[in-house]
Amino acid sequence: MKVLTFGEMMLRLKPLGNNRIIQSDVLEATYGGAEANVAVSLALLGNDAAYLTKLPGNLLGETALSALRKYGVDTSKILRGGSRLGIYFFEKGASVRSSNVVYDRAGSAFAEAARNEFQWEELLKGVDYFYFSGITPAISAELEQVVTDACIYCKAHNIPVVCDMNYRGKMWKPEKAQMVMSKLMNYVSICIANDEDFEATLGIKAFDGDMSRGIEQKDSFKAGMLAVAEKYPGCKTVASVLRNIHSVEESQWMGLLLKDGEFYETTRYNLHVMEGVAAGDAFGAGLMHGLLHGFGAQENIDFAIAASVLKLTVSGDLNLVQESEIRSVMKKGGGASMSR
Amino acid sequence: MKVLTFGEMMLRLKPLGNNRIIQSDVLEATYGGAEANVAVSLALLGNDAAYLTKLPGNLLGETALSALRKYGVDTSKILRGGSRLGIYFFEKGASVRSSNVVYDRAGSAFAEAARNEFQWEELLKGVDYFYFSGITPAISAELEQVVTDACIYCKAHNIPVVCDMNYRGKMWKPEKAQMVMSKLMNYVSICIANDEDFEATLGIKAFDGDMSRGIEQKDSFKAGMLAVAEKYPGCKTVASVLRNIHSVEESQWMGLLLKDGEFYETTRYNLHVMEGVAAGDAFGAGLMHGLLHGFGAQENIDFAIAASVLKLTVSGDLNLVQESEIRSVMKKGGGASMSR
Amino acid sequence: MKVLTFGEMMLRLKPLGNNRIIQSDVLEATYGGAEANVAVSLALLGNDAAYLTKLPGNLLGETALSALRKYGVDTSKILRGGSRLGIYFFEKGASVRSSNVVYDRAGSAFAEAARNEFQWEELLKGVDYFYFSGITPAISAELEQVVTDACIYCKAHNIPVVCDMNYRGKMWKPEKAQMVMSKLMNYVSICIANDEDFEATLGIKAFDGDMSRGIEQKDSFKAGMLAVAEKYPGCKTVASVLRNIHSVEESQWMGLLLKDGEFYETTRYNLHVMEGVAAGDAFGAGLMHGLLHGFGAQENIDFAIAASVLKLTVSGDLNLVQESEIRSVMKKGGGASMSR
Amino acid sequence: MKVLTFGEMMLRLKPLGNNRIIQSDVLEATYGGAEANVAVSLALLGNDAAYLTKLPGNLLGETALSALRKYGVDTSKILRGGSRLGIYFFEKGASVRSSNVVYDRAGSAFAEAARNEFQWEELLKGVDYFYFSGITPAISAELEQVVTDACIYCKAHNIPVVCDMNYRGKMWKPEKAQMVMSKLMNYVSICIANDEDFEATLGIKAFDGDMSRGIEQKDSFKAGMLAVAEKYPGCKTVASVLRNIHSVEESQWMGLLLKDGEFYETTRYNLHVMEGVAAGDAFGAGLMHGLLHGFGAQENIDFAIAASVLKLTVSGDLNLVQESEIRSVMKKGGGASMSR
Amino acid sequence: MKVLTFGEMMLRLKPLGNNRIIQSDVLEATYGGAEANVAVSLALLGNDAAYLTKLPGNLLGETALSALRKYGVDTSKILRGGSRLGIYFFEKGASVRSSNVVYDRAGSAFAEAARNEFQWEELLKGVDYFYFSGITPAISAELEQVVTDACIYCKAHNIPVVCDMNYRGKMWKPEKAQMVMSKLMNYVSICIANDEDFEATLGIKAFDGDMSRGIEQKDSFKAGMLAVAEKYPGCKTVASVLRNIHSVEESQWMGLLLKDGEFYETTRYNLHVMEGVAAGDAFGAGLMHGLLHGFGAQENIDFAIAASVLKLTVSGDLNLVQESEIRSVMKKGGGASMSR
Amino acid sequence: MKVLTFGEMMLRLKPLGNNRIIQSDVLEATYGGAEANVAVSLALLGNDAAYLTKLPGNLLGETALSALRKYGVDTSKILRGGSRLGIYFFEKGASVRSSNVVYDRAGSAFAEAARNEFQWEELLKGVDYFYFSGITPAISAELEQVVTDACIYCKAHNIPVVCDMNYRGKMWKPEKAQMVMSKLMNYVSICIANDEDFEATLGIKAFDGDMSRGIEQKDSFKAGMLAVAEKYPGCKTVASVLRNIHSVEESQWMGLLLKDGEFYETTRYNLHVMEGVAAGDAFGAGLMHGLLHGFGAQENIDFAIAASVLKLTVSGDLNLVQESEIRSVMKKGGGASMSR
Repeated sequence: MKVLTFGEMMLRLKPLGNNRIIQSDVLEATYGGAEANVAVSLALLGNDAAYLTKLPGNLLGETALSALRKYGVDTSKILRGGSRLGIYFFEKGASVRSSNVVYDRAGSAFAEAARNEFQWEELLKGVDYFYFSGITPAISAELEQVVTDACIYCKAHNIPVVCDMNYRGKMWKPEKAQMVMSKLMNYVSICIANDEDFEATLGIKAFDGDMSRGIEQKDSFKAGMLAVAEKYPGCKTVASVLRNIHSVEESQWMGLLLKDGEFYETTRYNLHVMEGVAAGDAFGAGLMHGLLHGFGAQENIDFAIAASVLKLTVSGDLNLVQESEIRSVMKKGGGASMSR
Repeated sequence: MKVLTFGEMMLRLKPLGNNRIIQSDVLEATYGGAEANVAVSLALLGNDAAYLTKLPGNLLGETALSALRKYGVDTSKILRGGSRLGIYFFEKGASVRSSNVVYDRAGSAFAEAARNEFQWEELLKGVDYFYFSGITPAISAELEQVVTDACIYCKAHNIPVVCDMNYRGKMWKPEKAQMVMSKLMNYVSICIANDEDFEATLGIKAFDGDMSRGIEQKDSFKAGMLAVAEKYPGCKTVASVLRNIHSVEESQWMGLLLKDGEFYETTRYNLHVMEGVAAGDAFGAGLMHGLLHGFGAQENIDFAIAASVLKLTVSGDLNLVQESEIRSVMKKGGGASMSR
Repeated sequence: MKVLTFGEMMLRLKPLGNNRIIQSDVLEATYGGAEANVAVSLALLGNDAAYLTKLPGNLLGETALSALRKYGVDTSKILRGGSRLGIYFFEKGASVRSSNVVYDRAGSAFAEAARNEFQWEELLKGVDYFYFSGITPAISAELEQVVTDACIYCKAHNIPVVCDMNYRGKMWKPEKAQMVMSKLMNYVSICIANDEDFEATLGIKAFDGDMSRGIEQKDSFKAGMLAVAEKYPGCKTVASVLRNIHSVEESQWMGLLLKDGEFYETTRYNLHVMEGVAAGDAFGAGLMHGLLHGFGAQENIDFAIAASVLKLTVSGDLNLVQESEIRSVMKKGGGASMSR
Repeated sequence: MKVLTFGEMMLRLKPLGNNRIIQSDVLEATYGGAEANVAVSLALLGNDAAYLTKLPGNLLGETALSALRKYGVDTSKILRGGSRLGIYFFEKGASVRSSNVVYDRAGSAFAEAARNEFQWEELLKGVDYFYFSGITPAISAELEQVVTDACIYCKAHNIPVVCDMNYRGKMWKPEKAQMVMSKLMNYVSICIANDEDFEATLGIKAFDGDMSRGIEQKDSFKAGMLAVAEKYPGCKTVASVLRNIHSVEESQWMGLLLKDGEFYETTRYNLHVMEGVAAGDAFGAGLMHGLLHGFGAQENIDFAIAASVLKLTVSGDLNLVQESEIRSVMKKGGGASMSR
Repeated sequence: MKVLTFGEMMLRLKPLGNNRIIQSDVLEATYGGAEANVAVSLALLGNDAAYLTKLPGNLLGETALSALRKYGVDTSKILRGGSRLGIYFFEKGASVRSSNVVYDRAGSAFAEAARNEFQWEELLKGVDYFYFSGITPAISAELEQVVTDACIYCKAHNIPVVCDMNYRGKMWKPEKAQMVMSKLMNYVSICIANDEDFEATLGIKAFDGDMSRGIEQKDSFKAGMLAVAEKYPGCKTVASVLRNIHSVEESQWMGLLLKDGEFYETTRYNLHVMEGVAAGDAFGAGLMHGLLHGFGAQENIDFAIAASVLKLTVSGDLNLVQESEIRSVMKKGGGASMSR
Repeated sequence: MKVLTFGEMMLRLKPLGNNRIIQSDVLEATYGGAEANVAVSLALLGNDAAYLTKLPGNLLGETALSALRKYGVDTSKILRGGSRLGIYFFEKGASVRSSNVVYDRAGSAFAEAARNEFQWEELLKGVDYFYFSGITPAISAELEQVVTDACIYCKAHNIPVVCDMNYRGKMWKPEKAQMVMSKLMNYVSICIANDEDFEATLGIKAFDGDMSRGIEQKDSFKAGMLAVAEKYPGCKTVASVLRNIHSVEESQWMGLLLKDGEFYETTRYNLHVMEGVAAGDAFGAGLMHGLLHGFGAQENIDFAIAASVLKLTVSGDLNLVQESEIRSVMKKGGGASMSR
């Protein structure tokens, strides 16, 4: 079973620890991006995962590529060329100081990629699942069209399309997002929607915006998920992460899955968060892994949320954990023991 | 509106993370000092802030100066000369292990500065507020006299004097502190007193010394603040931070302001502390910022405490935050969201 | 009063912070091992502490030796020769991700040491206490014999033997451990047993394996400790640490001492753990320190647990704290104040 | 005497030491740019130096600004706004491996600045010298026009214009460069041209392109410099650095000055280069310093080349040296002694 | 064209810069080994390069594997299992202090691999060149047999065998080396022999052991190379690097190739060495690259030596350079220019 | 044979690599001082070396002490108490930029030590050699007296006194140095004098001050050494290092020994210097080691200079090398080979 994920990969520059950029002489340089993160997770879990993007032909593009190869992702489909690698600067917050992202992604090789560079017939040959997130069509009108092309091809060839809504308020406004995503949702079989995604990208009210009490709004989330399945009949699976976030470090997380009309809930995790980035991608990858291996619905969402909360303990965009560790969290809630 | 702060700046040497000095091959080198920290905060918030101290003519003095300039402080009044830059070593504790300060400040250029080097008429030209802390007169008898000179000049020229009591038990004993500060308080318009400051420097019993239940003693603090205003009729504003400190990381903080006979209280923050140094200076600067911009009393203390708790998330003596971040903490309590 | 501790010292290699090995270009290199850690603690507390092991004649052996000397341990008895220094890789976990140890200790100079290299008459000359842990006999059959030789010598010469059970599931199985340790226990005067040690090494059921509720099982622990004293009449002192571990960072700890038929309990500490390694060795050293200085039973266990929880705030295997810091934790519970 | 320098400031990202980007988890983050470097040098030498550029309103722009302020540059004229801060990646080579620059400067706030943002009458008020390099007009047609505006204003108000040719082959081709620069040279009083600058930007053949024997071509350089002075009669001063570069580390440097028809040569320095970036800017600043202080021609070029070779020993774009150090190199050739 | 290289991969632990182990709290952790280095070089140059070894099933084995994957090596043939990953500690010397290697490779998964784990028929399917070095048979008698098996298979199937003698005095003595290698040489088509290799592994006197004048002994090297070709008629190509090493940093290098009876010499490079490890592997890979692409003999040896001297500028075992950089060194001798 | 060395130990703070203090966020923290360095070298070479100083009772004093213990120095005689540990800041230069030392040693525990704290009868019990440098009496009048007391005691008890002149122009002027040292020289048996020491501390003209041609002045040095022996008849051994220093990195070094009227010269080393600090102390220790082990005069000076030039390859004040490495340099000149 082969998965192809499609999106933008960026250089991430982050001060050490919780430092601020203005006090930093060195920046950690890692590479990631929603769909790349999913591909890496899947590869680390032993799956055949390919990633599609466009990377510049310079040293930065080469280094981004090597970061994927390191973890076993199939990079053979990646396009090369164009001008620059997108960048995002990331200040990890602490306590009451929120984390901070400064995008520097305009003009990237991917953002400027043209529709005719993507030969979907060839790119999707042998692919069993196609995965993208709402970030990709938000990048450019051309990429919106490219994603649409891919979705049409997938539908015609019975390749299930998985989409993580991933609303980014710094990239587009709700009206635009809804207009674009409501079209694309017609091709989506499995949909991941969190928090503000419901309203901002799907126009469905499910969450009141108070991050400190997402779990308390479970019923509202369920209603929202049902609304998604109703509005887009091809989308029989909707998954979501519910969170109570009290500060940068302290939060509770749980997963919710709607599959073929039934809801499945996970246990609720109390977490001390090391880094709150890309946990949604880890969730998506965990969900995909279950789909690829035929997990039952309950195991599937349990696995996905355990993968997701483990990401909160790993620095960088990539969820560098093994299946045994995810299983251990599923079983024991994790963290208490040390084998030696 | 121009503020002049006056005190000693030091090199701070700190092991990485929570390491101890005995296991450290490298030390972080940053620069700070109570009044310098206030000046930097004010400059970062867009105010016209000048800082007065004496720095040695060597590379260390130059570097300390450049650290102030970097953040926009007016350093034109700083005296140069003398022998050395004071140093303090700082071990950040963890959990039940307290943080640890080793002073190495004797014989510094500032500590050995002479009264006649400070021409207050010129130094205070165009200054709207004069700020110092109880550390400055604790350094030397000469500096006690210098501060007195400044206060007299300010009184004569209607420049309000702001004083943070800042009692330092390693620098002087309560008897001495009280003797000196009770004289200086006659010139002070706005006074900041925390925890042990009340008793040690003002001889007023307000806090029983149990850092784990400062907030529970709010009434006692209020009584103490009223006593200050009564004893020193020129001091119509008294501000204080109340804290319940459970460990190096866990604490609750709130602010209290007495202004013209009325009390103003802030919300209470639950904090995961990254570094517990210089939050008092951040509070003082927040208070000053409100004074400079004519904030109402409630907004003033809300702003000050939000600035103060943000400092607990920033490494180094300086409160490297922007006004928008302080406002965000005031509004939401902070930490939960990440804009991207 | 002189203590001799006996065991293996290893190079510990650990990624920075909570990083994983696969993402690490640099590893922290420190040196430790259960009995070496005890010796360092004792030396730092001002005791005459000697350590016995065998270190290779190469640069790694020399560096391990220098790490002990740095903290004042008497290294004059250490044997040199053999092939390599044992290594362990340590990934510090976070939140729900457990910490992880990868042993690479096979074939070490100590593991291959021969019985006739240890001349106990000479090695134990002037020694007042002999300390080893269950790790040492687990390393090789030869070392099991060597430890037995030492115990026999100690018994014959009235040198009290202290043993920390220290069960390591990656080194031997319960059956083997019980077989070996039950023989050695006949020579032991003071025994430290935690958690799984009771069952795995002594065959006594005292703890149900749920690390999140050790303290709740206090009565069961007490029964286990009494069973130890009953089974091994020479062992009049049994000490234990009880823990509720909720995640890598959050736990509660308390100490329990059985001495001459009486139980002594400590207060219960709420901890934010920086590094959960070698706290048991710190506990053992704290206990020994009390024995060497004739502390009463209550003070002895209070001191031991305070030393142990302080270790949770120090990076590396060694408990780099001073007696005054242990006393401060005993008195105030620690962490709240900063003297300056 | 006030100098205004005008150009682009960038974030520079560089692997540690001589590492390559593909093997780097961290990058040094510093800030610089030809004209910013000149302003910093001048400020560090005690001059009144202002810098003009446009920086984005985000954290990166703020940090770039603070880097200038740190060293005393007047940043009050800097425009804020626009999208991003330009970046350049820098791999320091070693031995036979050349250093490597990857530009990522397209779309920067400065590159997209508009002509009408620059009110030269106000910007040049009180300015005694205007400094720019050939990089600035190479960035955009708009900036070419902006520089022309400035030059016209300067000529009309007798403000001498200093220009460092600074040809950048990755930014424009010789034909374009010559077309633009030949117009601008009509306004230039003092011109710095090195190596390929002569031919690429001025169309004058002076150097055969062999970097290993620049000094051997001194006569040809002199002819080129005379040709410049002849072609642009307003340009009475032409300065140049001659180099024999044998490898990344080993080179010889000397300076050459043509002033009012006379040539002045410096001694020849044998250098072990630590970092070969921005030495030309240090030379320009050294030359400017002499102009500002009325040095004689020989002292002027001696000072400039000493400043320049000192830059080869400092990491980062900025020449962090003091006048006394430049003087020491002028006197002794430097490096041999250590005062203590 | 596919190459398979076969040998041991190790974790390399090195203090930062030129530090010594005894003063190092952190060690750089990289991964390499003669034949792995060759595979990485070939992959980076765009070739289809597979690597065969056995790696343990633990985190260290996984990390070693990911290091190969990162640079595009085909790792699909690598065996997993066994106990540990071999390690070598490396102190980089300076000036008159020699670099220092401490092996800790005994008992590694590869060293303990058994003959029947290597199914050469499958492993060599589709392979066009087989590459190993003298280190592999030096590891164990079993591996000597395994290499022999591979060579026999290659001979039978016309797969050319390339062997770098790579004598390691810490692994075996000349008598043993000669006994083993003289048998294996009967299968070798292309042989690389440097310095002491001639005498220690082939019993041919070509070099007098004085590393400071290897180039001066060119005639003697040539005689030795001819002797090799004569003694082993199947070996028609012999390549060698000649060096004058004056100190850790300063040396001259040149290459020598004997092909079908003709000698080809390269230019002589003056080098400032950053790290003197694995330049021989870079040479071997450069040679292989030429063979794979049908370079003429002169271009082949020119390319190989340029690749080799570039390795002296890169930290770590892997020669992280691109073909364009090798070409640039071949053309210009390198180092002098910086393109920007 | 036991040696006691006597002097001041300091914390040394140094930017990473060749960075400047003004650009440094972290400083390397190591510990050293002329006589401490000698003691460490002697201990590392296997000698019984004790060190006498006074260290403050704080964490810094404790850490300095542990640095000595780490390398096996007998620290039992060290006095504790007083205020602070002296500090020196060290900027390592590069090429033409000289290295730079900023002293911050005033008011140190040692500088303020009183005569009556030093009970020489007890301190010198069992000591076979007493070693101090000219730095010690330069610190204070009290210490001048203390050194005199020690010398008188040594003379009375036939303990040879070794003195390294070690002139420090930042600590005293030649007149003062000569006045003090000429008295002390009457007690000295073995004297080390380098470069400016001859004139500044002994009033003997031997070196013209040009560090780039010290070796060329060998005859003049010899005359100076003879003059020393003549002036101070008790001083039968005079040793000196001659240097041609061309830049921070490049120099030539050789040793010269006058013993009982005969001169002994070493070979001349060409060096690439990593750090030019404390090579004189390494020389002194090398000389002492020969005395302790009865080396012949030629071997003695050969060993001393080899130890000294090795120090130029080690970072920090301490010469962390082994006897075998010194022997290797003596034999081969070093640096060319790597054993593996």
